[in-house]
Amino acid sequence: MRIEDMTRDAFRRKVAEGCVVILPFGATEAHGAHLPLGTDTFQPAHVADAVAERMGNVLVAPAMPYGNHSSTKNMPGTIWLAFDTVRAFTRDVLTALHGDGVRAAMILSGHAGSSHLCAIKEGCKDVVDACDMKVSLVSEYDVGASHPKVRDLAGDGHGGLVETSRMLDIKPEAVTADRPVGTYSSTGSLVVRDASVCFPEGMAGDTGPASAELGREINSYIIDSIVGVIRRDLL
Amino acid sequence: MRIEDMTRDAFRRKVAEGCVVILPFGATEAHGAHLPLGTDTFQPAHVADAVAERMGNVLVAPAMPYGNHSSTKNMPGTIWLAFDTVRAFTRDVLTALHGDGVRAAMILSGHAGSSHLCAIKEGCKDVVDACDMKVSLVSEYDVGASHPKVRDLAGDGHGGLVETSRMLDIKPEAVTADRPVGTYSSTGSLVVRDASVCFPEGMAGDTGPASAELGREINSYIIDSIVGVIRRDLL
Amino acid sequence: MRIEDMTRDAFRRKVAEGCVVILPFGATEAHGAHLPLGTDTFQPAHVADAVAERMGNVLVAPAMPYGNHSSTKNMPGTIWLAFDTVRAFTRDVLTALHGDGVRAAMILSGHAGSSHLCAIKEGCKDVVDACDMKVSLVSEYDVGASHPKVRDLAGDGHGGLVETSRMLDIKPEAVTADRPVGTYSSTGSLVVRDASVCFPEGMAGDTGPASAELGREINSYIIDSIVGVIRRDLL
Amino acid sequence: MRIEDMTRDAFRRKVAEGCVVILPFGATEAHGAHLPLGTDTFQPAHVADAVAERMGNVLVAPAMPYGNHSSTKNMPGTIWLAFDTVRAFTRDVLTALHGDGVRAAMILSGHAGSSHLCAIKEGCKDVVDACDMKVSLVSEYDVGASHPKVRDLAGDGHGGLVETSRMLDIKPEAVTADRPVGTYSSTGSLVVRDASVCFPEGMAGDTGPASAELGREINSYIIDSIVGVIRRDLL
Amino acid sequence: MRIEDMTRDAFRRKVAEGCVVILPFGATEAHGAHLPLGTDTFQPAHVADAVAERMGNVLVAPAMPYGNHSSTKNMPGTIWLAFDTVRAFTRDVLTALHGDGVRAAMILSGHAGSSHLCAIKEGCKDVVDACDMKVSLVSEYDVGASHPKVRDLAGDGHGGLVETSRMLDIKPEAVTADRPVGTYSSTGSLVVRDASVCFPEGMAGDTGPASAELGREINSYIIDSIVGVIRRDLL
Amino acid sequence: MRIEDMTRDAFRRKVAEGCVVILPFGATEAHGAHLPLGTDTFQPAHVADAVAERMGNVLVAPAMPYGNHSSTKNMPGTIWLAFDTVRAFTRDVLTALHGDGVRAAMILSGHAGSSHLCAIKEGCKDVVDACDMKVSLVSEYDVGASHPKVRDLAGDGHGGLVETSRMLDIKPEAVTADRPVGTYSSTGSLVVRDASVCFPEGMAGDTGPASAELGREINSYIIDSIVGVIRRDLL
Repeated sequence: MRIEDMTRDAFRRKVAEGCVVILPFGATEAHGAHLPLGTDTFQPAHVADAVAERMGNVLVAPAMPYGNHSSTKNMPGTIWLAFDTVRAFTRDVLTALHGDGVRAAMILSGHAGSSHLCAIKEGCKDVVDACDMKVSLVSEYDVGASHPKVRDLAGDGHGGLVETSRMLDIKPEAVTADRPVGTYSSTGSLVVRDASVCFPEGMAGDTGPASAELGREINSYIIDSIVGVIRRDLL
Repeated sequence: MRIEDMTRDAFRRKVAEGCVVILPFGATEAHGAHLPLGTDTFQPAHVADAVAERMGNVLVAPAMPYGNHSSTKNMPGTIWLAFDTVRAFTRDVLTALHGDGVRAAMILSGHAGSSHLCAIKEGCKDVVDACDMKVSLVSEYDVGASHPKVRDLAGDGHGGLVETSRMLDIKPEAVTADRPVGTYSSTGSLVVRDASVCFPEGMAGDTGPASAELGREINSYIIDSIVGVIRRDLL
Repeated sequence: MRIEDMTRDAFRRKVAEGCVVILPFGATEAHGAHLPLGTDTFQPAHVADAVAERMGNVLVAPAMPYGNHSSTKNMPGTIWLAFDTVRAFTRDVLTALHGDGVRAAMILSGHAGSSHLCAIKEGCKDVVDACDMKVSLVSEYDVGASHPKVRDLAGDGHGGLVETSRMLDIKPEAVTADRPVGTYSSTGSLVVRDASVCFPEGMAGDTGPASAELGREINSYIIDSIVGVIRRDLL
Repeated sequence: MRIEDMTRDAFRRKVAEGCVVILPFGATEAHGAHLPLGTDTFQPAHVADAVAERMGNVLVAPAMPYGNHSSTKNMPGTIWLAFDTVRAFTRDVLTALHGDGVRAAMILSGHAGSSHLCAIKEGCKDVVDACDMKVSLVSEYDVGASHPKVRDLAGDGHGGLVETSRMLDIKPEAVTADRPVGTYSSTGSLVVRDASVCFPEGMAGDTGPASAELGREINSYIIDSIVGVIRRDLL
Repeated sequence: MRIEDMTRDAFRRKVAEGCVVILPFGATEAHGAHLPLGTDTFQPAHVADAVAERMGNVLVAPAMPYGNHSSTKNMPGTIWLAFDTVRAFTRDVLTALHGDGVRAAMILSGHAGSSHLCAIKEGCKDVVDACDMKVSLVSEYDVGASHPKVRDLAGDGHGGLVETSRMLDIKPEAVTADRPVGTYSSTGSLVVRDASVCFPEGMAGDTGPASAELGREINSYIIDSIVGVIRRDLL
Repeated sequence: MRIEDMTRDAFRRKVAEGCVVILPFGATEAHGAHLPLGTDTFQPAHVADAVAERMGNVLVAPAMPYGNHSSTKNMPGTIWLAFDTVRAFTRDVLTALHGDGVRAAMILSGHAGSSHLCAIKEGCKDVVDACDMKVSLVSEYDVGASHPKVRDLAGDGHGGLVETSRMLDIKPEAVTADRPVGTYSSTGSLVVRDASVCFPEGMAGDTGPASAELGREINSYIIDSIVGVIRRDLL
């Protein structure tokens, strides 16, 4: 059930019955030569919709399609928000949901950058300090990367096998025919101005073996995991 | 052409050729008993897609589905952002687009609240002061409200005949069968804590005569107008 | 009754009896070749004094002589404040008045710029959200522009017939002998760095027919209107 | 020469010739039972006008009638601004003057509170760091308090002999017949929530010997001093 | 070489020769029943001094003894700073060092909280974006936790075997005789108001086997590692 | 009793008994050719330790070694914080102490710059407005400068006779053999970009007669004074 499609009164009734709101937090970010810029939005939106279909008392808020980026900030197509904007956005949306009577919410982030997640977390803290609401923060990318079939794959990361396979399942028409191989090379302890040097190919991993089948498996695994997290932490 | 569906390289090529980016700025807002909460997002997204289809050199950025609200802030389903968050968001996205090489952008707002538009405008000013980029701000709601068939209709406003007709054209399955009549009653010169008193019915106007046909006509009119504005101001 | 002329105890007594405080919010702004830079301060200060003379329970706070400007920002003599400064100023003064026991206040703005009024309004919202006080915001320029004798005059605006006539009534010695004609030319949908292009002559309208008599009539009309607004909204 | 009375072009000409702008920074503040709330505005405005009359190349900006207050914050009639608002106001006005071509400015503060002066000073620092402009900050109260006839008077301070005498010279009709005696009692090293305990009588000193003659002498002394400071520091 | 012990001229000479400045970023934080509140300051200060002794061109800035805390925020003795304060502090100190001519700096954090490190990192980013300076950020706790003898120890964490051993080497008189055993229990995906539930014993791990010998070994390992990082990243 | 050396439980017990926490607020600042950069930290830390030794119920928080600087900002070795950072730091530490149950705290500043002290004071005000805690702010430099043997010494100031003597008592090995003579020359009313012109020698006074004996006397005098202030204001 997507909030954007509900009327005021339908929303009020669901909230009155008690429900969990999932906010898919996406991004518009360069994902190598082969994946669409909306990859990090499509993934959590897909997962959230599937979770809501599975559980009766889950509503999906409109996906936020912009986030904070470090290593890909200077790549073409990355449209970034400042750290403070992500924090303020998170705080505002959760506060507004609380004002609407919502008492349990999950931020489901498609982008797993550490600054991005930290900004969201700081926003969540502001809200749990001020309001009586359960707030859960999950990086669905990280959930996917721990799938048994890929978790021991060294070097798979941004735009790699996992993301390529997942996108082949979710939106195959937006994935090009390239199957690039890329490496992440760290800047060590340095905080650098342009971290795009970390991803010479704009992605990390070997996407050769990517398939819609693997993607479906990983997507299912994530959906199952999120259902589990909601049952454990929010209900 | 939606940016979310493009790869990094496809985006880079379009920008290098010279293009205009439209950012549909939506909202999640109570729209009476009959319209979906995403009304103000669906409308500018629809218009932007149509404009991009018509003009070769226009890209559509992912629609921002949250905005700033005053009179409907306390109604169920309105998920608001603070004034400063809307301003910061606008500034960040335009700055990032400028960093990507974009030199002409239009914010196409579905929500026409004066504080919301002012927040966007302040964000735009920050960017045009600092960057060499043409920035256009249009409230597509206001464009639609000036359509010859409705502009002399007294009292049509939020969730009224225009919006209901437009949504019947864009997404009829999300419009309920109700055809409410509502009045906007001003708080005079007062700035009030809860301005929802202005909309006892949550909308303003007589939606009785609403039809998909009228909606299509208004939507076309808006699309034509935006094409004209882009040609006049941004190319 | 001007607050600046009252002692602590006289002020306390009036507040204890219940009174409305008017804050004339002025500006220091280029007003064509013929009007003084303080035009937007002189006008609301004049109106506020007259209203207070008419009603026993109205106090006039010292006029704030600076505001936020867009189109005239780069003209000689405009001394502008940032948007946030106007907002903070408004919030602070109203909060302080509330702390003094005042429960009804009106911001009477001489400058009618939309960003300026929005900044004041955002400050007012902060206060009505936090305090139990009636707050009214009126652009006295807009009240004057709707006077029956001038409201159908196309193109009269900043520094035009209305303002020139009003200043001839209020402070004729500060008006030069020029009676300029000027046009406002819009930048369309563009948010521009230097909006002074909108006013090639620094003003808009035909000041040829300006007279102290017309000014007096408009000023009286505004004073009457404000008395009415106070009775309707604040008492 | 008051800026508020000048047209755009008269102002531009004076600035082009090279001039110093004085901004009288006033306050609306409880000043015992006998002095008007605008005391701290009337004083620097009077001094600035007199200095401008004496020196050809000095312009007086409109007096700012609000400031930051600590010990009198909770007294009736004190209308305070936050520290940051005073700082932002100072920064904005000086920046705008710099944009107008002004290269030498003096803030002439009537209120001598240490936080108030610090807030102004921080605003001045922001401007001298960013712009090429000479900025002078003077507390005219402190200049007056060092007049030979009163500087050895123990305990004369806020609303005391000096201020009462000065106001009897500047605006005698706003001074009541009371001639109170008051003491300032320190809170030691404590930073307290309500510092109005420092001024049980709302003022400090013995105003018995106050006279317009003494006031005139002190006012002349301040005017002479400011002329000297401008010659030494700003020309 | 500690900066606090150097004169202005000695400092200037070292900087002119080219040097790396280490800022030990400590904390005042509850560390179980047995470790002193300054544990996270003593550790990086000890390491930085040892590194500076080893390398001729390293200066040690005064240790910052306060940081940002989440899980221990509500425990007695934790004196926390807000996220933004840690970020601003980092930005200011690095900017000031840059102004002094320093071109290579390392923040050596004793506290490894993710929000704390993120706040420092955001501050570092501000500086590398604006200044030409190499900035390195290292959590020396994390370096120590990867020592071969302890890295496979499940559950050792805050105030555990590593920290207890290290403190027995650095400052044994501040370690009590208790050798507690504690467990970290996660709050799952929830962002909670009081995260002290994660550490029922205020620490995590089994400190039974703690010894000064082990501590010395780990401390040496960290010192060696930091020397290596400086050589690789900053020289 | 230093907080950094105490365990969580020892700290909790002392707070429960009722105690005063002293925060020595230091600085890293150029102090002429002869004194170490940490002079302003060593002094209040020394005093705080001595006061705590004398009084049973006083705890010493870790000394903050950075502050805000104006006149020495551009000298080598001054590592400054922005005004707002000092204010935020003060507010956070006091708020955290209040959360720990502390109800009486003293900020003991070694640096006596007026902006620095104002920033601390603004932070203190935020806390006393929001929390029930006695907060005392003392510039121990100013206390020392009023010692009978030196208070009539014209021109002794930053890095002068008092500070040199005090450092010869506290940390003689960090004082070089130079005994410079320097003068402070004011910038008059001007707020200047680089105020280091005020201290051509980087210090003010004649340090010829400096001695550890005089320093010990002044240090004792300060320690006695602080004990007195705590008894009068905080117990």
